[in-house]
Amino acid sequence: MHGVSQTIDQLRQEFEEHRDEIIDAYKAFLRFSSVSSDPSQHTQTAACAAWVENFLCGIGFQTEMWDTSEYPVLFAQDLSAGPTKPTLLLYGHYDVQPVDPLDLWDTSPFDPTIKGDDMFARGAQDNKGQCFYTLQAVKALKRHLGTLPVNIKWVIEGNEETGSAGIAAILPSKAEALRADALFIIDVGLRDAHAPSVTLGLRGIVALEVTCRGSSSDLHSGCYGGIAYNPIHALVEILAKLRDSEGKITVPGFYDAVKEKPPEEKKLISFACDPGQWEREFGVVSTGGERAYPALERNWLRPTLEINGVTGGFSGPGVKTVIPAVASAKISCRLVPDQDPEVVAEAVTRYIQQLAPSGIEVTTHVFPGGGCAIFTDPNSQAVQAVAQAFTEVFNKPCEFILEGASIPIVQKLQRACGGDVVLMGLGLTSDRIHAPNEHFSLTRLLQGYLVIARSLELLGTSPTV
Amino acid sequence: MHGVSQTIDQLRQEFEEHRDEIIDAYKAFLRFSSVSSDPSQHTQTAACAAWVENFLCGIGFQTEMWDTSEYPVLFAQDLSAGPTKPTLLLYGHYDVQPVDPLDLWDTSPFDPTIKGDDMFARGAQDNKGQCFYTLQAVKALKRHLGTLPVNIKWVIEGNEETGSAGIAAILPSKAEALRADALFIIDVGLRDAHAPSVTLGLRGIVALEVTCRGSSSDLHSGCYGGIAYNPIHALVEILAKLRDSEGKITVPGFYDAVKEKPPEEKKLISFACDPGQWEREFGVVSTGGERAYPALERNWLRPTLEINGVTGGFSGPGVKTVIPAVASAKISCRLVPDQDPEVVAEAVTRYIQQLAPSGIEVTTHVFPGGGCAIFTDPNSQAVQAVAQAFTEVFNKPCEFILEGASIPIVQKLQRACGGDVVLMGLGLTSDRIHAPNEHFSLTRLLQGYLVIARSLELLGTSPTV
Repeated sequence: MHGVSQTIDQLRQEFEEHRDEIIDAYKAFLRFSSVSSDPSQHTQTAACAAWVENFLCGIGFQTEMWDTSEYPVLFAQDLSAGPTKPTLLLYGHYDVQPVDPLDLWDTSPFDPTIKGDDMFARGAQDNKGQCFYTLQAVKALKRHLGTLPVNIKWVIEGNEETGSAGIAAILPSKAEALRADALFIIDVGLRDAHAPSVTLGLRGIVALEVTCRGSSSDLHSGCYGGIAYNPIHALVEILAKLRDSEGKITVPGFYDAVKEKPPEEKKLISFACDPGQWEREFGVVSTGGERAYPALERNWLRPTLEINGVTGGFSGPGVKTVIPAVASAKISCRLVPDQDPEVVAEAVTRYIQQLAPSGIEVTTHVFPGGGCAIFTDPNSQAVQAVAQAFTEVFNKPCEFILEGASIPIVQKLQRACGGDVVLMGLGLTSDRIHAPNEHFSLTRLLQGYLVIARSLELLGTSPTV
Repeated sequence: MHGVSQTIDQLRQEFEEHRDEIIDAYKAFLRFSSVSSDPSQHTQTAACAAWVENFLCGIGFQTEMWDTSEYPVLFAQDLSAGPTKPTLLLYGHYDVQPVDPLDLWDTSPFDPTIKGDDMFARGAQDNKGQCFYTLQAVKALKRHLGTLPVNIKWVIEGNEETGSAGIAAILPSKAEALRADALFIIDVGLRDAHAPSVTLGLRGIVALEVTCRGSSSDLHSGCYGGIAYNPIHALVEILAKLRDSEGKITVPGFYDAVKEKPPEEKKLISFACDPGQWEREFGVVSTGGERAYPALERNWLRPTLEINGVTGGFSGPGVKTVIPAVASAKISCRLVPDQDPEVVAEAVTRYIQQLAPSGIEVTTHVFPGGGCAIFTDPNSQAVQAVAQAFTEVFNKPCEFILEGASIPIVQKLQRACGGDVVLMGLGLTSDRIHAPNEHFSLTRLLQGYLVIARSLELLGTSPTV
């Protein structure tokens, strides 16, 4: 398909020559406190979108801001490569997570700070860092080659961190504009900084809340203990019955659509992992989930049901002898291919209603924003090109991995674009995204920039897409 | 033992004549924001103690303030009845519960307000209202008879609402001063405003906290779901195993010391209750506790284990896909006679440790301030005198009831005083003690005043105590 190119060496050299200017631009992007969930950051978030738009205009893209019910979606395109070349749709987001708890940050989250090889800031990785190396790669490649080797469309949204409801609603009406041969989701990671990889799949997700209601107000546990059914008891009894002692989910029908991956497909995937690393990083002992499967398979190829939060009664210091009126829990299920979020939510809801004890009102609410799992073909030209680029940049064979997390918008974007999905990125679990002291290494910023540039070059010279 | 006295009618008349002055004094007592748990109310709490001390000095009592590690205990005595008369020890408290949530109060909690027959204020019932009718009764009786018919000692503490640790620590050294023939705990209630009753027993209590710890920080439920053991799952699995499907507590040894009451003792107790009333008042359906026993027996004669609070992970609006590092629950057990709080706490702790799943660190903490159940002899002269006084004041036969709640200091006070316990009071569950809009009716204020006065008169004329 293609020989090793000189482009990587030349672009690396160009990066080093413009290093200060590149870092300055990266910092400028990170300085916007574009927290989409915080209405007080509205101006900063809108300004951040404008900053990206200006960047893309500056390198010759035509841009549009698509209105949504939330922040606008920045759409940009440069189709100058012409109809004989493939068209890629690149996805990223300009919004970031909130910064709380602020006191656990060692540096100010919107005052980007380099320590050693790392840039510390909210968004340094997710997704501004990954978005930024892509912007730089396209800019540099255009300068280096004189023209883009492929047609590029870009969607950069402003509500990924709040569930992508705005973009999801307008996608069906934008299918024509978004049509492309491949969809690049540049928002995932590597299992290790030294192991180049392309991600073949994401899990789907659906989230629910279950609420147990007893009395109309909190009761004294002396005066009513033994009489009133405590809704916390009802809640824990229900929740405990959702999994058996082997970690298997007991919801009838939960696994109905789940297919075991055939061995030849499993063989493609690198299940190399060091459980000791989880223990060192986070004190995690890998005893969760279905005991019948190895840890990484449980995370990558099996659905889960996790309680993400539980609350009821008194949790301050000391003792308060209350029987609360209400107790509730948040639950989310990670899904694998062929599981439908609505069908799973319905099965969980039905089972919870079956478990509801007499005297307790049990209600469930399914949150919007669920999505299906993604599993992409490892043999698509787009995936193969990115894998080769990773191999060349890292000088090491690229692996295929999976990702246990979910990006619910991917399936909807793929439906609009019609092309193959490529899930890529250079994040690491140690980057502390969504947490205090988020950071991203400048080494990986450079590597990401090279992988993107080389991937585009390869796809531009490939005979067919 | 005694004929019907004229005292009741005369004291009732005297109350009506001095009504404005009595209400003014009651309001003055209620205006002190003596919230013992709130350090910012220190001056108000100390001033409240001084107000009570001045009241008692004004009616001829000798008073002392006993220092404790917390607020002082007001001790007062009038032994002028002489050694041939019985000595009573009266217990009350001048501190009150916090007022949060303040916005649910219809009137300001420390600006006592009469609406119809009810006084609204924090402490209007618990315990200032009940303490106040006792003070008024002693004052009026002394004026009416010219002298007290019995010797009276008084302990009024300032930390009942925070667990009585201060008074508990000094009791052993005060046994001589506190010695008495009977101990009156004037801090309980009636089952109905029109059903006079004396309470024969209180349950004991012991409280614990259980904490489940997984990873060293919160984890993303996509990246670690299926790998990490979620401590919320561990917690609900443990908590759900503490009771079986019939509401029986499964902790080995929990019921070892529990004895069934003999039928002749059960017959003394009025188990008349209208479960419909609980439903009307609080939407409570009486499906909690051990199914094998009727509702009031479960509340009065059986121990319980209630989860008073549970917390872990995310409970804000919407979805956060987290596997939290920690989840915890507060548990309290109500105890019946012969159950030892320490032994029960140890049994619960041991069982929870047995249930702890591998990979999760489970710790338990037993809170100080537990106490044993109280069961008092219905045939003691003190109980009989109060029962007769109730019968006369209400013009209806007095019943014996029990109380599901606990006053842990009672057993320790009884040990110091050496006399029979009398548990009495005119509270109702609808008084909203510990909650917004606490209130007490002026009718019951008058009835309490008459019952106390008549009880003292009866005990002063009884041949032996």
